[in-house]
Amino acid sequence: MPSSPVSEIITYSDIEAAAKAIDGVAVKTPLLESPLLNAALGCRLRVKAEPLQITGSFKFRGAYNAISRIPEARRASGVVAFSSGNHAQGVAAAASMLGLPAAILMPADAPKTKVRLTKDWGAEVILFDRFTQSREEMGAKLCADRGATLIKPYDDPLIMAGQGTLAREAMQACQADGWTPDMFLSPAGGGGLIAGCSTAVKALSPATDVYSVEPAGFDDTAKSLVKGGRVANDPKARSICDALLAPEPGDLTFQVNRRTLTAGLAVTDEEALTAMAVAFRYLKLVVEPGGAVALAAVISGKLDVKGKRVLVVASGGNADADVYEQALARPLPF
Amino acid sequence: MPSSPVSEIITYSDIEAAAKAIDGVAVKTPLLESPLLNAALGCRLRVKAEPLQITGSFKFRGAYNAISRIPEARRASGVVAFSSGNHAQGVAAAASMLGLPAAILMPADAPKTKVRLTKDWGAEVILFDRFTQSREEMGAKLCADRGATLIKPYDDPLIMAGQGTLAREAMQACQADGWTPDMFLSPAGGGGLIAGCSTAVKALSPATDVYSVEPAGFDDTAKSLVKGGRVANDPKARSICDALLAPEPGDLTFQVNRRTLTAGLAVTDEEALTAMAVAFRYLKLVVEPGGAVALAAVISGKLDVKGKRVLVVASGGNADADVYEQALARPLPF
Repeated sequence: MPSSPVSEIITYSDIEAAAKAIDGVAVKTPLLESPLLNAALGCRLRVKAEPLQITGSFKFRGAYNAISRIPEARRASGVVAFSSGNHAQGVAAAASMLGLPAAILMPADAPKTKVRLTKDWGAEVILFDRFTQSREEMGAKLCADRGATLIKPYDDPLIMAGQGTLAREAMQACQADGWTPDMFLSPAGGGGLIAGCSTAVKALSPATDVYSVEPAGFDDTAKSLVKGGRVANDPKARSICDALLAPEPGDLTFQVNRRTLTAGLAVTDEEALTAMAVAFRYLKLVVEPGGAVALAAVISGKLDVKGKRVLVVASGGNADADVYEQALARPLPF
Repeated sequence: MPSSPVSEIITYSDIEAAAKAIDGVAVKTPLLESPLLNAALGCRLRVKAEPLQITGSFKFRGAYNAISRIPEARRASGVVAFSSGNHAQGVAAAASMLGLPAAILMPADAPKTKVRLTKDWGAEVILFDRFTQSREEMGAKLCADRGATLIKPYDDPLIMAGQGTLAREAMQACQADGWTPDMFLSPAGGGGLIAGCSTAVKALSPATDVYSVEPAGFDDTAKSLVKGGRVANDPKARSICDALLAPEPGDLTFQVNRRTLTAGLAVTDEEALTAMAVAFRYLKLVVEPGGAVALAAVISGKLDVKGKRVLVVASGGNADADVYEQALARPLPF
């Protein structure tokens, strides 16, 4: 049985409720394991293959959970979201399946694949400049004009609980064959995924260490954990990990993560690209840069994993072809 | 309950026995489905994601089944196989797990990834010239010299039955949610995979039409089905689908396939590359050229799939980076 909740923002029972809400709609993504990759790394690695989720990332879980709870009277006015792309697709798909109109604010430099696929789900896409316009203000105005419901990308308990179903599924699958991870690593942007996942992991296996992994320069969660309070990133920082470019930890997500996380790690863009190439060769899984950072942390030796059982989240696979080609050109580390 | 067997070469109970032999060792690979891809194609498509199998292709299934039956007295002398790469890795991995030494004859022009990964599994790799040397003669000599057991790539009932576990798994997963495929399409080289799979499909769902898909110029199964007897390919034919370059249908495999297959289809290399790009974008699955031909047949309209339930095998994902880059450069058809 799960132990007591680790925070009052979300509890394990919120994650169980989210799992029920998305049951039969979201994909129960597989855990991948490569004997040759294990031999190369000297650990036992399992990868939660969330690129195989509907819309190619975990974001569908939280979006569907949140949208499914919108009261009947507000549904016709639809939903609004802002996102670099994966939350956009998750919201667009969930809204489409639940029969609500969706308007999505996306940065003009978002990967073309993500913009295209969001439109394919029937959403209205409105582009903005990531560095000069405030997506929060634009989103608030859209909601006011239309009476629509804002679906936040991470700082919302329903979103966190939805993302936490990923770790619940993974941990239950591991428990089914008696495999308890020593470490759990997940990518972190605004911190919604790791907040939900760490809540699930700590409820089901309190001794498992949980690490967030961020792109170097966007390691606000890592720095905030060290400082004990929220720290923002340098606005001049850039990274190819477009899914993980939140300016600072969320208010609510950090209240969870400061209690659940062992530490925060960071990897370079080059390390993320190498991890994509490793996933190509050993796992046959398409992973985008931001989705590959947790795998990158293991491959590039940010932790001592020798002899350990390591559960890693590959959180998304919506890579543009040109970025993927950069990854394929990387020399493999083994 | 399965109906009566369709041939005397292998029966459904041979496939059940193989499923028992590989249980807990082989991966039960997932079925992938993309709502957006369904919308684009106008059908309901499920893809059996065999790149996620151990060694990145279905070949591990048959190899493990065959090697696990070698009598104790012959195990120490090991196994020999010849293969363009996927059977090589399957045999190398299965032999390694079962504790037998393995020597593998591989064509000198096999993808570098396949040669490298076969060696990583601990096998001895011996290269030969695909167009001037007889792999059959070289393999026979190796077996005679060492007292080793030859693990044929396809023309062996234990191999066919092992490969058939793929379709058994897929059909059982579909039956679990009441989904009966109208059509089943699988890549074919020597015909072992489609022989095993078609036996399983016809046993579990006699009304499902089963199609082999081959590269243009290597469509020996298609031509043989039309003629009613085995036809060899033009030795001057070339294709990037390195996994599917068998010179003619196997003797035993064709005895099965002539009774079970509705027809044989063929696709061009360009169509296979486009299917790889579609799998990259919509399924996040790395598929090699030969592994993508059945998906290619659906995408390029070789059959009228409108409104149909279509079960497709993606049989392997061991693509070299340079070939994958060719696929990523293809324009998508939708």
